[in-house]
Amino acid sequence: MKSDEANFALPAFARYTQNVLLEEIWQRPQLLPRDRSIVTVAALTARHQPAEMARQFNLALDNGVTPTELAEVITHLAFYSGWGNATLAASIAKEVFETRGIAPTALADVKGNLLPVDEAFEEVRVAAVEQMIGPAFDALAGYTTSVLFHDLWLRPALTPRDRSLVTVAALVAVGQAAQIPFHVNKAMDNGLTQIQAAEIITHLAFYAGWPSAMSAADIAKGIFEKRSE
Amino acid sequence: MKSDEANFALPAFARYTQNVLLEEIWQRPQLLPRDRSIVTVAALTARHQPAEMARQFNLALDNGVTPTELAEVITHLAFYSGWGNATLAASIAKEVFETRGIAPTALADVKGNLLPVDEAFEEVRVAAVEQMIGPAFDALAGYTTSVLFHDLWLRPALTPRDRSLVTVAALVAVGQAAQIPFHVNKAMDNGLTQIQAAEIITHLAFYAGWPSAMSAADIAKGIFEKRSE
Amino acid sequence: MKSDEANFALPAFARYTQNVLLEEIWQRPQLLPRDRSIVTVAALTARHQPAEMARQFNLALDNGVTPTELAEVITHLAFYSGWGNATLAASIAKEVFETRGIAPTALADVKGNLLPVDEAFEEVRVAAVEQMIGPAFDALAGYTTSVLFHDLWLRPALTPRDRSLVTVAALVAVGQAAQIPFHVNKAMDNGLTQIQAAEIITHLAFYAGWPSAMSAADIAKGIFEKRSE
Repeated sequence: MKSDEANFALPAFARYTQNVLLEEIWQRPQLLPRDRSIVTVAALTARHQPAEMARQFNLALDNGVTPTELAEVITHLAFYSGWGNATLAASIAKEVFETRGIAPTALADVKGNLLPVDEAFEEVRVAAVEQMIGPAFDALAGYTTSVLFHDLWLRPALTPRDRSLVTVAALVAVGQAAQIPFHVNKAMDNGLTQIQAAEIITHLAFYAGWPSAMSAADIAKGIFEKRSE
Repeated sequence: MKSDEANFALPAFARYTQNVLLEEIWQRPQLLPRDRSIVTVAALTARHQPAEMARQFNLALDNGVTPTELAEVITHLAFYSGWGNATLAASIAKEVFETRGIAPTALADVKGNLLPVDEAFEEVRVAAVEQMIGPAFDALAGYTTSVLFHDLWLRPALTPRDRSLVTVAALVAVGQAAQIPFHVNKAMDNGLTQIQAAEIITHLAFYAGWPSAMSAADIAKGIFEKRSE
Repeated sequence: MKSDEANFALPAFARYTQNVLLEEIWQRPQLLPRDRSIVTVAALTARHQPAEMARQFNLALDNGVTPTELAEVITHLAFYSGWGNATLAASIAKEVFETRGIAPTALADVKGNLLPVDEAFEEVRVAAVEQMIGPAFDALAGYTTSVLFHDLWLRPALTPRDRSLVTVAALVAVGQAAQIPFHVNKAMDNGLTQIQAAEIITHLAFYAGWPSAMSAADIAKGIFEKRSE
């Protein structure tokens, strides 16, 4: 992988990009390039950074993310980082698909055959939402159940583990600390190892900045300790 | 209302946009379309999302927000979400006004006749600022009184209730939890009902993402309970 | 300094820009125009606001920030606010440099002669990182030491005090409260006075919005009190 930034007027920045980010971080074996791509795409979308999107969307497709999966990552982020972010990412994804000659039929909406609901998880989740936002927010609680957890999360176009990658990356990337514990736990229930979770946060130090990563690591450390008790 | 996104290469996203966002959320009677437009414009401006602004500015004008009110929403947000956000929104608003043939004279700066100061509220507010940031920040405290609360909030170009809609939406949209209690209380003092406050946060789940909305709902629930004691 | 915004279709916004921001805040003697420029550039970059960057980059150069320093500010922000933000700022800086006829050779990467490590500070910092994120994040802790504090912060292209201005401004501008105490303390160790620290936050009320500034002032007040004990 080569850095386009090398021709920028900032030689130190170009050097860090090449030596630290591209030749070192992206090559670390703790996380596959495909996973790094999903995390990076989620961070860019959640932070509304169009300039890097086409490059990273192409890299994601090169790294084994299918076009349908990329479309689903963006759809998932509509709910987890807002419609405006997903709309922007969707317009750039469309251009990338067209440039690569990916036909719209290859992206047909996946219908039916939702994954089965995990009733035990749902019971805990519904109780937690009820306890948190109570009867004053019955519409929000209702959409959380029906649209988010009984539809979006169960769509087979993306594995639950990959949805967790997307969600955790989006939360860390914009510093939404309050929602990190729930989703790091869910990610690990969905198969993410502790080493991978730590590596996602380390990767995001570069794409969301050190302060976001340090704050997230502080929270994740507490979760790791609780789960190993 | 129809979704331009329908022609995007992401059929699931287009379907959610059409079925859930446009045909359901925007039609819920708990909040008027005019109020939803003010909240959406504030969220887009506070989150610096130009791609959707022209569409939503036009929709706001269609929904009964006057050109002067839209200009004042953006001016208000200069203070509550930063000059760069307002500058971007202003440049797009200018294009929208020109396209619709709205003459600059229709937007003449409203001068004089500021609304009366609420002395009881001011006494509590000044004491809270003094207690929070103390003598080390006398310039910031001074501007908060003179420019924000004795000028901006009293400009008659927007009702205090609508300024509250704008302010609360901006705070929720970027996750500024610390300032939410003060402004949700002020919004309700300015006439916003509990049902409307809850609906604003539910609406923002879609425009700022679920995590922002859930965190805000958690805070708002506590305010609702305190006010009903 | 004159406001281009004056010709926007928002006369009240144009008036606040001219009378309050340009003719008052930027002229306050508590902070030099050069320092205000560094803080403003950092805030715009950390908040990913390209529309104002060219204007503010030019103003920074007019106010005495050298081209090499501006390049280094952006490089520093790659680590403190994410690669995507720095990449965008770098592309705009490149255009500004070209327009002003600044030759690439004037921006040659500063090599060798790193500033000496402050061993006493490093001992405290390493212990704090270790205690905060522990052994689960040894890679992140390692990069924090080797790349951030034993390389980036010691590069002579920017004084430690100016790096602190950049870092504090970036943290305040995006509301990363958890990291503010460490960096406000470091900034004051690096020579920033309490009056200057307060003025940075007051300046940022305009460029990052009142809520960010009020939350940061609340935190900084506590730091000021602790340091004067």
